[in-house]
Parts: sequence; structure tokens; C-alpha cells
Amino acid sequence: TTVSSFSAVPQFSSDSSKVVSSGAGLSIANLDQKNCFSVNCSRAGSNVLLVGVHGPTIPCEEVSVKHVGNEQYNVAYVVKESGSYTLVVKWGDEHIPGSPFHITVP
Amino acid sequence: TTVSSFSAVPQFSSDSSKVVSSGAGLSIANLDQKNCFSVNCSRAGSNVLLVGVHGPTIPCEEVSVKHVGNEQYNVAYVVKESGSYTLVVKWGDEHIPGSPFHITVP
Repeated sequence: TTVSSFSAVPQFSSDSSKVVSSGAGLSIANLDQKNCFSVNCSRAGSNVLLVGVHGPTIPCEEVSVKHVGNEQYNVAYVVKESGSYTLVVKWGDEHIPGSPFHITVP
Repeated sequence: TTVSSFSAVPQFSSDSSKVVSSGAGLSIANLDQKNCFSVNCSRAGSNVLLVGVHGPTIPCEEVSVKHVGNEQYNVAYVVKESGSYTLVVKWGDEHIPGSPFHITVP
């Protein structure tokens, strides 16, 4: 269990190692489509889910995070350029297991 | 200028203090509507924009980050519950100026 050390943020009690992610969008993505994965934080305490995608030259077009209940989230993102991307998924200040993910866009 | 110290993430050269944000959604939000703000990272080097919203009891319903060109982003989020929220906006590992924002939902 870790506690955020940033004083201005509410003190969350959470364990990012208990976050479970799954889905094709964690490893491969297609141009101009919604690429999806899910993140289950229900066993990871209380914190904020942060998601970002870094592209080879231009940023990811859009990233959308939906809470689908009980601290489970569906994430969709759209890319406009082929190449290698870095997907960052954090539960508060800490990366979830596997993050940063390396995404290939053929 | 700071450089990310997390070795598995690409080394970005960025300065989160140069990120500029604006919009009503940084301070107040309405239930069941898209609450919006914009983030301009064009003078802040290269990094990943991370956005998350923490609610009083349930998480934010949806957060969407759209790149609108030249490292400028529009963010929209939807909340389903009144109360106090914490909005986290990071440029890589660092909070942007003003983050974490405290949002009131009447």
C-alpha cells in the first residue's frame, strides 16, 4: 500500500500493483479506429486513473476514459499516424503493471 | 527544463510550468453535461498529457482528451454526482500550473 506524497492532492490509499488491464489496445492499434482496453481498479484502493498516449511525431488524436462501474474503466483511443506509441496508464502517481505500454500502429 | 527520470519511459525534454490551461471546467462543473477546458502545451516541450478526475464517492463518468493541433488539447468530462472533485492535469510526471484543481459540482 502506498500513499501519495503530493500534499495538495487528497491522500489516497491505493496499490497500483493490484490494477489489472486487458485488451488488444494495450499492444496494437489501428489507424482511424477506436482502439480499446479495459482497466480494473476495484482491488487497488482509491485513486485517480490517468491515461495518456505519446505518438512518434504527433500526439494521439483522442483518448477517452469511461467509468463503467465499481472502479472499472473502458479506455478508447484514436491514432492518425503509423509508428511506435507509448501508452502511459497510472493509478495516481504510479504506473499500473505493464505501463508504459509500447503500442505498434501498422 | 526537466527530464523524466523513469527509465522505461522515453526521455522527454519538457517544462510543465509552460503549460497554460483555461476554461470554466477548471473550477466548476454541471451534472450530466460536458464540462470543458483547454490545455496549451505548445511551449512546454515534448511529453504526454495525463488527465484524471476524482469524485467524492464515485469516479468521474467520462474524461475525453482531444488533440486539436500543435500540442493544444480540448478536455471534456462528465460527472454524475454533486460535491467536490479533484482534477489532476499532468504533463508527464509533473502537475501543470494550478493542478490539482478543485472542482465544485452544485
